[in-house]
Amino acid sequence: MSNTKIGIVVGTNRNDSQSEEVAKYYAQEITKAGLETTIISLKELPHDFAFSALYSNSGKNTAFQNFQDKIDECQKLVFVIPEYNGSYPGVLKTFIDGLRHPDSLANKKITLVGVSSGVLGNAVGLSHLNDVLSYLNANVLGFRIKLGNINSYFREGKFSNQTYENLINKQIYDFLKF
Amino acid sequence: MSNTKIGIVVGTNRNDSQSEEVAKYYAQEITKAGLETTIISLKELPHDFAFSALYSNSGKNTAFQNFQDKIDECQKLVFVIPEYNGSYPGVLKTFIDGLRHPDSLANKKITLVGVSSGVLGNAVGLSHLNDVLSYLNANVLGFRIKLGNINSYFREGKFSNQTYENLINKQIYDFLKF
Amino acid sequence: MSNTKIGIVVGTNRNDSQSEEVAKYYAQEITKAGLETTIISLKELPHDFAFSALYSNSGKNTAFQNFQDKIDECQKLVFVIPEYNGSYPGVLKTFIDGLRHPDSLANKKITLVGVSSGVLGNAVGLSHLNDVLSYLNANVLGFRIKLGNINSYFREGKFSNQTYENLINKQIYDFLKF
Amino acid sequence: MSNTKIGIVVGTNRNDSQSEEVAKYYAQEITKAGLETTIISLKELPHDFAFSALYSNSGKNTAFQNFQDKIDECQKLVFVIPEYNGSYPGVLKTFIDGLRHPDSLANKKITLVGVSSGVLGNAVGLSHLNDVLSYLNANVLGFRIKLGNINSYFREGKFSNQTYENLINKQIYDFLKF
Repeated sequence: MSNTKIGIVVGTNRNDSQSEEVAKYYAQEITKAGLETTIISLKELPHDFAFSALYSNSGKNTAFQNFQDKIDECQKLVFVIPEYNGSYPGVLKTFIDGLRHPDSLANKKITLVGVSSGVLGNAVGLSHLNDVLSYLNANVLGFRIKLGNINSYFREGKFSNQTYENLINKQIYDFLKF
Repeated sequence: MSNTKIGIVVGTNRNDSQSEEVAKYYAQEITKAGLETTIISLKELPHDFAFSALYSNSGKNTAFQNFQDKIDECQKLVFVIPEYNGSYPGVLKTFIDGLRHPDSLANKKITLVGVSSGVLGNAVGLSHLNDVLSYLNANVLGFRIKLGNINSYFREGKFSNQTYENLINKQIYDFLKF
Repeated sequence: MSNTKIGIVVGTNRNDSQSEEVAKYYAQEITKAGLETTIISLKELPHDFAFSALYSNSGKNTAFQNFQDKIDECQKLVFVIPEYNGSYPGVLKTFIDGLRHPDSLANKKITLVGVSSGVLGNAVGLSHLNDVLSYLNANVLGFRIKLGNINSYFREGKFSNQTYENLINKQIYDFLKF
Repeated sequence: MSNTKIGIVVGTNRNDSQSEEVAKYYAQEITKAGLETTIISLKELPHDFAFSALYSNSGKNTAFQNFQDKIDECQKLVFVIPEYNGSYPGVLKTFIDGLRHPDSLANKKITLVGVSSGVLGNAVGLSHLNDVLSYLNANVLGFRIKLGNINSYFREGKFSNQTYENLINKQIYDFLKF
């Protein structure tokens, strides 16, 4: 396991998102456990990637290829995913649609973290994304975390909610063994 | 009903997609039934819309606003949706994420058409998209069509498969009454 | 509309369920609006119906047929559905699997109410059930209600949570027009 | 791994189901690979288990407890699941609802096989069931198999479709390593 590198995907391209802060929290906790992490933030994607990196342009966009390389060098991925319109952000699926097909996520081990200002913690979006990842032959940890009411319970990089901290600790523990 | 305008959304920004041809087929059949249609094709979106039309830029991108206006003037929408990575294209969700929130699709009547080269006809993607549309308070016709093996059964604007033609006729009939 | 009869399905066979109390609340509110209602409670199903009313026994179980008749005489249905193991109760799907195939729910108008002691209000279960109902060509109102934390907000037949009351009023209003 | 016992769940209580035959096929192939298997067939459940083994009767039905014991002694499970009404059988969810809560499936490794006479191979039902299993903290192999048109391709315990055989071989190989 010592060579495992864990990518933490911020599942939105919005600036100053809570998901990015939660991703940093995961990176910090996983680093503490002795593993190497890298944050993969969709806000740094080329702005026209939905056109310039997909279909006949697949593999030709150098800036997008940096993202592909980061995915390729990670054996495990944490997806931190805000809830937009009752599911995961379209930009995250567009990112996945732009990755080299069909092996980019195959056999990777993945865990899902939903984030929302409302109560659901993106429960439905995690279900949808799990389907996509399973379709691509990634293996997703059963234990999905749903961090609802994020603005009440997470501030300045710390959780004020012990339940959430405990769930995250359990998830990271299970994920590192997975 | 005579004033109803029906938008037919091509759910991908890929050029020369089968979904666009299927959308034209629906437009033609609905026009025959005496209703006004307009095709809304995501390939005409501004290439950087995932950044320039969302979040703090919401409502500020004039080219995107033309799409918003088209959605606003339709009371009913047909979504023709290819299967990418076992679900609907990310660009379609990004488009929805860019629409004026939260009323853009509320109370609209929508029907779903899945298209795939494989056998599934985007069955899982239609489920995912139905969740998003329901979340936004659109009403989706129960009868979802799954056009699998599209390359075998649809050529030069015509279906060679009588079953598919019958399903589409039933769907359009039910949708116009819906 | 005056002849419309609305069935309210209690989606569990558990005794003394909160879902049954919520179903009674809906019946009372819809009756106030001037429509006829009937409660269809799965706890009254024959105990062996999963064997005695399905497959080669389809249509032969008289006690089950009383349920079939109730479904047949309703043009609209409200499903009140507790969350069991992150989805809707198996007994509800078994009930649907026992109904006359394939037309029992076709063209019916249906609305969904999720109930849970946890925060999710059966959000994922409503998604699953919507798929089943759509498959059977029922039309499901987009506006799905998720009543999480039910034990805190609903007691002795009354909601102490104004938000929930408002959501339910909107749902019933939209459903009667649907 | 030598002590691993693999349970193969026939996800229906219908007599003479294709799913049971497919389950036997999996048992035979996994046995060839040197592992112990046991078939868990829902048709042998007590006929009134939806009432006599759930809720206040949980743990009290001796015949149901034999099923609980079988689940408990398996570290890995294959679910073979027919498509009923566009999803998995209600009786399978009712069975899960009757298992000891919440640990019966936690940390088990599970793989999913969809079976249908139509083309979909229960694609949507596998998505639904994956959600339930993930909720219960089971880990589900990403690679889900969808055996559509089963009556054309599987007869007298043999597949006539090389693609299906290859998919199953890959699934079993990945599952034994999982």
